[in-house]
Amino acid sequence: MSVTAPAGFEAAGVAAGLKSTGKPDVAVVVNRGPLKAGAAVFTSNRAKANPILWSQEAIKGGVIEAVVLNSGGANCFTGAFGFQTTHQTAERAAELLGVGAVGIQVCSTGLIGTGDDVFRAKVLDGTAKAIASLSVGGGDDAARAIMTTDTVPKTAVHRGGGWSIGGMAKGAGMLAPGLATMLVVLTTDAVLDAAAADAHLRSATNVSFDRLDSDGCMSTNDQVTLLVSGASGVTPDPEEFASALAAVCSDLARQLQADAEGASHAIAIEVVGAASEQDAVEVGRSVARNNLFKAAIFGNDPNWGRVLAAIGTTSAEFDPYQVDVSMNGVRVCSAGGPDRPREEVDLAPRDTHVLIDLHAGEATATILTNDLTHDYVHENSAYSS
Amino acid sequence: MSVTAPAGFEAAGVAAGLKSTGKPDVAVVVNRGPLKAGAAVFTSNRAKANPILWSQEAIKGGVIEAVVLNSGGANCFTGAFGFQTTHQTAERAAELLGVGAVGIQVCSTGLIGTGDDVFRAKVLDGTAKAIASLSVGGGDDAARAIMTTDTVPKTAVHRGGGWSIGGMAKGAGMLAPGLATMLVVLTTDAVLDAAAADAHLRSATNVSFDRLDSDGCMSTNDQVTLLVSGASGVTPDPEEFASALAAVCSDLARQLQADAEGASHAIAIEVVGAASEQDAVEVGRSVARNNLFKAAIFGNDPNWGRVLAAIGTTSAEFDPYQVDVSMNGVRVCSAGGPDRPREEVDLAPRDTHVLIDLHAGEATATILTNDLTHDYVHENSAYSS
Repeated sequence: MSVTAPAGFEAAGVAAGLKSTGKPDVAVVVNRGPLKAGAAVFTSNRAKANPILWSQEAIKGGVIEAVVLNSGGANCFTGAFGFQTTHQTAERAAELLGVGAVGIQVCSTGLIGTGDDVFRAKVLDGTAKAIASLSVGGGDDAARAIMTTDTVPKTAVHRGGGWSIGGMAKGAGMLAPGLATMLVVLTTDAVLDAAAADAHLRSATNVSFDRLDSDGCMSTNDQVTLLVSGASGVTPDPEEFASALAAVCSDLARQLQADAEGASHAIAIEVVGAASEQDAVEVGRSVARNNLFKAAIFGNDPNWGRVLAAIGTTSAEFDPYQVDVSMNGVRVCSAGGPDRPREEVDLAPRDTHVLIDLHAGEATATILTNDLTHDYVHENSAYSS
Repeated sequence: MSVTAPAGFEAAGVAAGLKSTGKPDVAVVVNRGPLKAGAAVFTSNRAKANPILWSQEAIKGGVIEAVVLNSGGANCFTGAFGFQTTHQTAERAAELLGVGAVGIQVCSTGLIGTGDDVFRAKVLDGTAKAIASLSVGGGDDAARAIMTTDTVPKTAVHRGGGWSIGGMAKGAGMLAPGLATMLVVLTTDAVLDAAAADAHLRSATNVSFDRLDSDGCMSTNDQVTLLVSGASGVTPDPEEFASALAAVCSDLARQLQADAEGASHAIAIEVVGAASEQDAVEVGRSVARNNLFKAAIFGNDPNWGRVLAAIGTTSAEFDPYQVDVSMNGVRVCSAGGPDRPREEVDLAPRDTHVLIDLHAGEATATILTNDLTHDYVHENSAYSS
C-alpha cells in the first residue's frame, strides 16, 4: 500500500539500468488532487545534492504535483551538468503529466560525485517509463525502487476518521538526518493547506527522523516530502492529524534503524530528567555518536563509563554525581557511581534500551541509534563499494 | 631517557598489581629543583575523573614537586571514596618526599567506574615502592608503567642551548584530547616561572594534542603536565622554547596516533585556504570524526564525496563548489566536482595525506586521525575488556 494507501495518489517503481543489479531504481509518486498541497524538509548539510537544490526552490509555492526519485546515483557534487540533469528530470515529468515543472520534487540517492550523460539518459528514460506505469496500487513498487543498501522496503499506513496517511522510506547508512541517504515520501488524503502541511511535517520530523542517528554521518541528499491530495474531503482535527503523522514518521524511523547497515543492536537512548528537551536531545545524540559506547554494545558490554564520558562532552545542564544510567532495565550506575553489577545486564537482544536520568529537570527525549560492528566497517569500506 | 633527560628530575616505574598481567602500573616523576614550577592542562570533558578534580586544584599555586601516575584503573565515577584514594595518594607521596600535598599531581588511567579498597591499597603501596626506586635513569621505566593498550612506550627529548625538554605519553583509545586516556608528562631544566610554563604549555598543546582526534571520544582523565626544574640555570629565548616544546608535543602526538587501537592508517587531514584557523580546525575535525570516511580509508577507497559531506556539516566559511580535495597527492575533486580518477590514488601506505583547500582565506590547520577498522571494533567491544 505505502504511499498509495490514501485516496488521490498513484505511484510506480521501474528498472532504468541505474543499478548494476538490474533492480528497480526509479520511482514516481503523483498527486491526483483535488488539492495539490505539499511540504518538504531537507538535509541541513551545507553540501547539498543537486536534487535538494532544485526541490528547495520548487517547494516554495507550496504545491507538489509529483515526486520523482532515483536510487543508483546521488547526483551530488556533479556540478552544473548534474543540476541540469535534475532540472531536465523535473521538466520531463512535468511535460508528461501536463503540469508545471515547479510542481515536481526530485530526490536522488547513491554514490556522491558521479552522474554523467549516461546517468542522465537513464534517469530521464526511467522517469518516462515510471509515469507510463502509474497506478493506484503502485506504492509497494515505488518503495522497492528507492532502496539502496536497504534489505527491505519500509512503508507505513495510518487510517484516521475518514482520512489516511501513507508513507515510504529508504536509508541504511549515512543515517543522521538533519545525510547514502534517507528519502521519505508521505501522502495524505486529508484536507490541509500547504502551511498546515508544512507545520505538521516539521513537528513530526522533529520528534522522529531528527532523533534517528545511526552513524553520526549526515547525508547530502536527505529529504522528507509530504503530499496532500485532500481526496477524502475530510478536514482532520489538527491534534489528531499531528499525532498520526508523528506516529507514521516514528514507525518509518524505527524501520530505518532496524535495517541500518551492519548493525546488530537497535539502541533506544532515553534521556529523562533533563532541564530542557534540547538538553535531552544533545545528551542522547552525544552518546549515540560515541564509537566506544557503540562498540561496547556490539560486544554486549554494558560499559556505562563510556556513557558518562560522552555525556561529559555536552553543554547540557547536569551534575556528573547525580546521573543514573540503566541498561535493559538494570541500573548499573546511580549518582555517578557503580550500582548493580554489570553481569546482571543482558545485552543479547537486538533491541537495547539505555535510560539516562540527569536529575536536572523534567524534559525527556529518545534518540535511536545502532551499534558499531565489524559488518558496519565491512559494508562501508571499499570491499563493498 | 624520557622525562629524566633534563637535569633535576628522577623517575621510577613499578608493578603494584593493578594490571592483571603483572606489568608495571605505577610511575612517579619527581622534580628535584631548584625551581619547582609547573603547569598542566586537563580534559575539557565535564565528567572528570577524581585525579583530575584533585590535580586541577593542586596546580593553582604553580608548584609541582612530583607527579604520581597509575594505569590499571581510571578512578573515575568512583564517588567520594575514589576522591579520597587520590587525596591519600598525594598525601602518601608528599609525606615520603617531605613536601606539601598540594605539590603532588595525580594521574590515573584504565577502566571507568572501578576503584575499591583493594585498588586503593595497591596504588598507595605502589606509590611508596616507586618513590623508593627513584633514579635519574628512571624515565624509561616510568614511560612503560603508564601504558594501557599502548603497544610501545612513547618518549621524546629535545636538547636546546644549555637546556632540554623531556616527555612521555600514553594513550591508544578515547583519543580526542580536549578524553581511556591520554597522559603526558613533560619536564625541562630551563629556567621558567609558573606563568611562563603555563603559557608555553597551552600554546604547545593547542597545536599538537588538541589536533589529534583518533576516535572522537574525549576521555575523563586526560592531563598534560609540565614540570620545570630550572636545573640548567639557563633562561631560554621564549620563542625558541615555545617552538621546542611544540615540537616535543607534536612528536608525542604522532607517536600516539601511530599506536592508536586497531588503526591501519595514520591520516593527516591538512586544511588550507580557510577563512580562519578555527574554521580549518573545525573542518579537519569534522572529517576526522566521520565514520564513513574513516571506513573508506580502511578499505583504501578515496571516497571524496564523504569528505565533502562531512565538511558540509560545519559552520566554516566555504562554497561547496569551490572546494578541492587531494588524497596522497592526487586531486580527486576540484571545485566541488570530480577531477582525477579515484583509481590513481594509492592508499596502501599507512601514512595517508588528505589535503582540503576551502578557497576561503589563508588559514591552515592539520588534524591527525586514524581509520575505522575491524580491529578498532574488536578491541573496543567486550571481546577485549
